[in-house]
Amino acid sequence: MTTLAVDCMGGDHGPQVTLPACRHFLERHPEAHLLLVGAPDSLSAFQHPRATALHASEVVAMDDSVEIALRRKKDSSMRVSIQQVKDGRADAAVSAGNTGALMALARYLLKTVEGIDRPAIASPMPNAKGGATTVLDLGANVDCTEQHLLQFAVMGSALVSAMNEDEAPSVGLLNIGEEVIKGSEVIKRAGELLRAAAASGDLNFLGNVEGNDIYKGTVDIVVCDGFVGNVMLKTSEGLATMVGGFLREEFSRHPLTKLAALVAYPVLAAFKKRVDYRRYNGAALLGLRGLVFKSHGSADAFAFEHALNRAYDAARHKLLERVQARIAHARPLLVSPADDAQPLEKMLTSS
Amino acid sequence: MTTLAVDCMGGDHGPQVTLPACRHFLERHPEAHLLLVGAPDSLSAFQHPRATALHASEVVAMDDSVEIALRRKKDSSMRVSIQQVKDGRADAAVSAGNTGALMALARYLLKTVEGIDRPAIASPMPNAKGGATTVLDLGANVDCTEQHLLQFAVMGSALVSAMNEDEAPSVGLLNIGEEVIKGSEVIKRAGELLRAAAASGDLNFLGNVEGNDIYKGTVDIVVCDGFVGNVMLKTSEGLATMVGGFLREEFSRHPLTKLAALVAYPVLAAFKKRVDYRRYNGAALLGLRGLVFKSHGSADAFAFEHALNRAYDAARHKLLERVQARIAHARPLLVSPADDAQPLEKMLTSS
Repeated sequence: MTTLAVDCMGGDHGPQVTLPACRHFLERHPEAHLLLVGAPDSLSAFQHPRATALHASEVVAMDDSVEIALRRKKDSSMRVSIQQVKDGRADAAVSAGNTGALMALARYLLKTVEGIDRPAIASPMPNAKGGATTVLDLGANVDCTEQHLLQFAVMGSALVSAMNEDEAPSVGLLNIGEEVIKGSEVIKRAGELLRAAAASGDLNFLGNVEGNDIYKGTVDIVVCDGFVGNVMLKTSEGLATMVGGFLREEFSRHPLTKLAALVAYPVLAAFKKRVDYRRYNGAALLGLRGLVFKSHGSADAFAFEHALNRAYDAARHKLLERVQARIAHARPLLVSPADDAQPLEKMLTSS
Repeated sequence: MTTLAVDCMGGDHGPQVTLPACRHFLERHPEAHLLLVGAPDSLSAFQHPRATALHASEVVAMDDSVEIALRRKKDSSMRVSIQQVKDGRADAAVSAGNTGALMALARYLLKTVEGIDRPAIASPMPNAKGGATTVLDLGANVDCTEQHLLQFAVMGSALVSAMNEDEAPSVGLLNIGEEVIKGSEVIKRAGELLRAAAASGDLNFLGNVEGNDIYKGTVDIVVCDGFVGNVMLKTSEGLATMVGGFLREEFSRHPLTKLAALVAYPVLAAFKKRVDYRRYNGAALLGLRGLVFKSHGSADAFAFEHALNRAYDAARHKLLERVQARIAHARPLLVSPADDAQPLEKMLTSS
């Protein structure tokens, strides 16, 4: 039996999205158990033999600061969900709430794994090969050192090997050219560390990759700092929205193009399914002593269920143990400078 | 009469793309004159009353290092083209050659404008409003200070005001959240400088923007460092290629979908035209004492002609004088630390 703690109140839509997703998830996973965390009123209508309601009196709002989430709302559905993981009552927690608050609470309650300075956010992105490229960090850490990038590479490798049953997933370092001499000073030093980790058998590092390689599917894992990762993610969302909007506009321009849309409908639906980002929902917060997954705040039930699926798969495939084992193996390469302790207040992430 | 110096040998395709583009450009612009720079054999067939052939014995290859372009190939078509601008025989130079070499040669021959430490690469990107968002820097400068970002904002404003006849184009600072407290240390300090420049009337600064704002068209100009800009650009290219490929695949899957493609053809063609990146070809190298435009290396004749158009418009709208005037006005805010001189060898750009 695998148990997930679900923050039913988080996200833009709360229980009206999370509960239908939970019901469908339970139907599809006969060995799953859910701890539904939220306001009693919201949860009372949900009855399922493998679901248990857990009451929480507060909700972290999408625009609450880390400060408020950490110090004021001590009985929030988000916090209670993570607490279930800490107390061993759940194998993973899932929330669509505000990223900054989720990361801060997860870090405060669960602590980081030894050898890891900073947890990172990792998410799969669709690629042209029909698979997914996992990218990290997507916004938890804005100023990264080469050591952080190495840690991200090790954690990302653990994630992909757990999810895809691939013992040596390939890693690329996001850069502005493939040549070793390219990039910022941090990136060049990170390249050296990653090559050392490849030499010691800790990583399957293939070298530098460029932005287009994410969607080409050149490597399984792309490592970057959280600033670059977040810009990449948001830019992609913006471009996809614009392109989708243009396509809709052209097909609805006048009666004849509407007729064409009708004829092309099955093709357009198949196309839409292929680029449906909802299937890639569910980012992992890596480097913590417990599993936490983040759903997009605007997720609908279909998307939220995908985040539940990812958390479920990660728990069943022992992601936590794999991250810890990989980090232990790479331990000689991972140094944690004492002056690098990052106060929680600085974890300025965006949701 | 406005004169452009065209590096006819540059790019992946050389004269077979640049010359047809030049011919079409001359037909459309009765007041334009072209200096066609390249190998005598390649140019001999081109005859036009407003075109003059200028011979250059060497070509900078797409993978030539900056070192080779600068020190070995002193009679390259790229260098001779820029030299025409320096000598006052051309109002702007256009090349589809290797970006790193072009930037290095332009910087070496033309020098930077007073008050500017580092030239930047600026290009328009299509946006959902049907217009374009100009983004800089796209890869010339990987490690930027807040001062550089301020300089980019001033130069970008000059570019957009010259091209769009808009005296106060809006500027956004690319960040991972809209709040002032978000982002890396450099970005936060850059935000302060940009707000100061807004207060002194040097910029129409609207604040932080996120990656999706580029395609939304929230502001006219988006400022970022060259690493982030280059990743953004390459990621966009990768995503657009993947999405286009999926759409093609779905429509060519079997006879019925091919029939649907036939019916939808006019709509798909209209859509394709709207997202055709070739219409946005032609990046400006800003901050130099002369105008240089860079075409994408893989440009076809249609795309290369757009780069010629942009250089022509920039020259006619006195872009150089506008950049210099804006920089002079913002001079009190622009400090050039003496230790910031960046050796040419460090200008590691990617094409």
